[in-house]
Amino acid sequence: MKILAEIYSQGEEVVTGQILDSNATWLAQQLQTIGFKLKRHTTVGDHLQDLADTFVEISKRADFCVCTGGLGPTSDDLTAAALALASGLELAFDADALANIESYFARRHRPMPETNRKQAFLPQGSVRIDNPVGTAPGFSLQLGRCLFVCLPGVPTEMKAMFTQSVLPQLPLKFELKPDRLISLRTVGIGESAIQQALKNLQLPDDVELGFRAALAEVQVKLLFPDYYTDSQIHSWVDTVKGLLGDEVYAIEGLDAAVSGDLLAVIDNLMCLHQHELVLMESVSFGLLAHTCLLKSWLKHAILIHPQEYSESEYRRHLEILQTQYPEAIGLTQSCQHTLAEIADPNQTITLRICLHTPALDYHKDFVLAGSLNYKQQQAATYTLDFLRRYLSNLCL
Amino acid sequence: MKILAEIYSQGEEVVTGQILDSNATWLAQQLQTIGFKLKRHTTVGDHLQDLADTFVEISKRADFCVCTGGLGPTSDDLTAAALALASGLELAFDADALANIESYFARRHRPMPETNRKQAFLPQGSVRIDNPVGTAPGFSLQLGRCLFVCLPGVPTEMKAMFTQSVLPQLPLKFELKPDRLISLRTVGIGESAIQQALKNLQLPDDVELGFRAALAEVQVKLLFPDYYTDSQIHSWVDTVKGLLGDEVYAIEGLDAAVSGDLLAVIDNLMCLHQHELVLMESVSFGLLAHTCLLKSWLKHAILIHPQEYSESEYRRHLEILQTQYPEAIGLTQSCQHTLAEIADPNQTITLRICLHTPALDYHKDFVLAGSLNYKQQQAATYTLDFLRRYLSNLCL
Repeated sequence: MKILAEIYSQGEEVVTGQILDSNATWLAQQLQTIGFKLKRHTTVGDHLQDLADTFVEISKRADFCVCTGGLGPTSDDLTAAALALASGLELAFDADALANIESYFARRHRPMPETNRKQAFLPQGSVRIDNPVGTAPGFSLQLGRCLFVCLPGVPTEMKAMFTQSVLPQLPLKFELKPDRLISLRTVGIGESAIQQALKNLQLPDDVELGFRAALAEVQVKLLFPDYYTDSQIHSWVDTVKGLLGDEVYAIEGLDAAVSGDLLAVIDNLMCLHQHELVLMESVSFGLLAHTCLLKSWLKHAILIHPQEYSESEYRRHLEILQTQYPEAIGLTQSCQHTLAEIADPNQTITLRICLHTPALDYHKDFVLAGSLNYKQQQAATYTLDFLRRYLSNLCL
Repeated sequence: MKILAEIYSQGEEVVTGQILDSNATWLAQQLQTIGFKLKRHTTVGDHLQDLADTFVEISKRADFCVCTGGLGPTSDDLTAAALALASGLELAFDADALANIESYFARRHRPMPETNRKQAFLPQGSVRIDNPVGTAPGFSLQLGRCLFVCLPGVPTEMKAMFTQSVLPQLPLKFELKPDRLISLRTVGIGESAIQQALKNLQLPDDVELGFRAALAEVQVKLLFPDYYTDSQIHSWVDTVKGLLGDEVYAIEGLDAAVSGDLLAVIDNLMCLHQHELVLMESVSFGLLAHTCLLKSWLKHAILIHPQEYSESEYRRHLEILQTQYPEAIGLTQSCQHTLAEIADPNQTITLRICLHTPALDYHKDFVLAGSLNYKQQQAATYTLDFLRRYLSNLCL
């Protein structure tokens, strides 16, 4: 029997679509991972009775609910009042909460505005949750069947409080049996080709298979119930990986060894082999450099504007790179298409990716489609993946 | 009296946080703009009774509801069945719907899988909404107080059907009186400085003032009820703009003349003055080039890796740029900080932005704070804004 959880977001700016509710997505992932069954998200604007009604509804059908937003100092921040109304409780002044808020302002050498006093009034009998990064304290309260945890809507505050204060308590309060989610992350193969590759796969009925396509990446997801053993899971994952081949660049959820996005995988390999990299971008035009800036193995990057591209420009820049960094791997894009062709969403273009090492050169042509932005993303991803394949001794 | 609208999203992948529900945000904006009062979003997973219960709840409190998702061909696509259950209706076969689905596959020279037949069964008495870009037809049905419109979850299909078929019908079915939303978009001034600048502003009680902070940008939002005249609105917007000053780079919602993001504003000015631009990035390291790739006025971009930065490197590159593009505006970043300092979220850094014209040079120092990614974003935005100020003849 799964423990039922819901997410409850509050705020006019969410319900009117001024901001995307990334809090709800993040929280749902967290709760799902540790074993809750997610049933609903509800978003309600800043109206006291609506907010209170929703607390009452959720209290009848869920075991656990995380609420975000509505804890600020202004008059439209109504969460504490709404939960008090729903529970038939008063708001009570919490002296420690006020002391925390005052010390937040004192550390910043600013006077506490009088409006912030409001944040120290919590529903009677609730348990305060301190906010290490902002002024708004959170709180938890049991109402009916449901334990409610109310956190601020600011993502950095919400995440810090959830991770530090809420998450460690949950296994003590609920008997959670998490499913095991394994993601095989692939690059360079489309969703339909993946389905084709897996068409003869005979998974047990209780293992769920799912797909998730993102920019230039497809994730194959396997969800195993908690009674599957490690070796059963490994065996099924090996089978799926065998069907998919070298396009799988990382497997998440299996063990710590291989995980993270494509850049993280390459970072590991570059550091392991102590390689250095120089980069020449055309179609992605800075996207790759910008993404890799922090990596110590990236030594230099040159951009060639597609309008300026010519074979001789390419050669000239390559020579500069190879003279300045004779030991580094050179990773370059060359593209003969005009900017108009690259920007045209109905036009496919060919991008040549080359990898130059002191010993040998490799190259491969890739076909890119879609909008300019999508082509830039694909160019950056395929260029990185070409490097991954070289570093992993795979066929180029 | 406002007409009350809700959004209802269906699908395990949304409720478990595998995807961000951008449909809900987009729909909320659309409905708010034309004059609905948005009350709730609800997201429910793929369980028939839960889905039907939610239809019943919404039918009692809202006038209009857009539902997305659950119209696909597979067994976990349950929207039609759930709405039929909630309404006490049967599903009825729609021969025209099947003909449309068959022709979708015929145009692609593929046989229609048998599972797609399911998509031609709609709740009895509902009005079909054809899908111009996919297989799943939508439908609308009145239940209780609420008119439900059910659309596919695939964003391109949902948006095409909403825009072409649903939106034109809404003013015929509801007496909508849209509020007027004006956004003053600012760059280079923080939210608290904005609140300080506006502290003596005495807006009428029926005009709502709001703020929205994004990466290196703050939007000041004014919401006017429908009975405000154009000249009243212009007068209040002028007052607010006067208090905020040159940090306002665009005003959206007032008229078509000035709108769009910072890049769009600069694009207009660059094209108007027929200027050309060359770029040298350090801290943003490719982010700006990548963003401006499509603009015809961007002639060349050079990246200097922060580890390589020195006064002489900077001079050498600037000379190359000025020799190759003597007529262009040169926009450069110089930064003496190490990469470790730039990447340290607790360290502030100083970025010098210079603008070189054939006649004169300008420069200004900016302090950047936060994570590497945030500093990169700030560097890119402030660099663009320095160009905007020059092009607009503002004080640099």
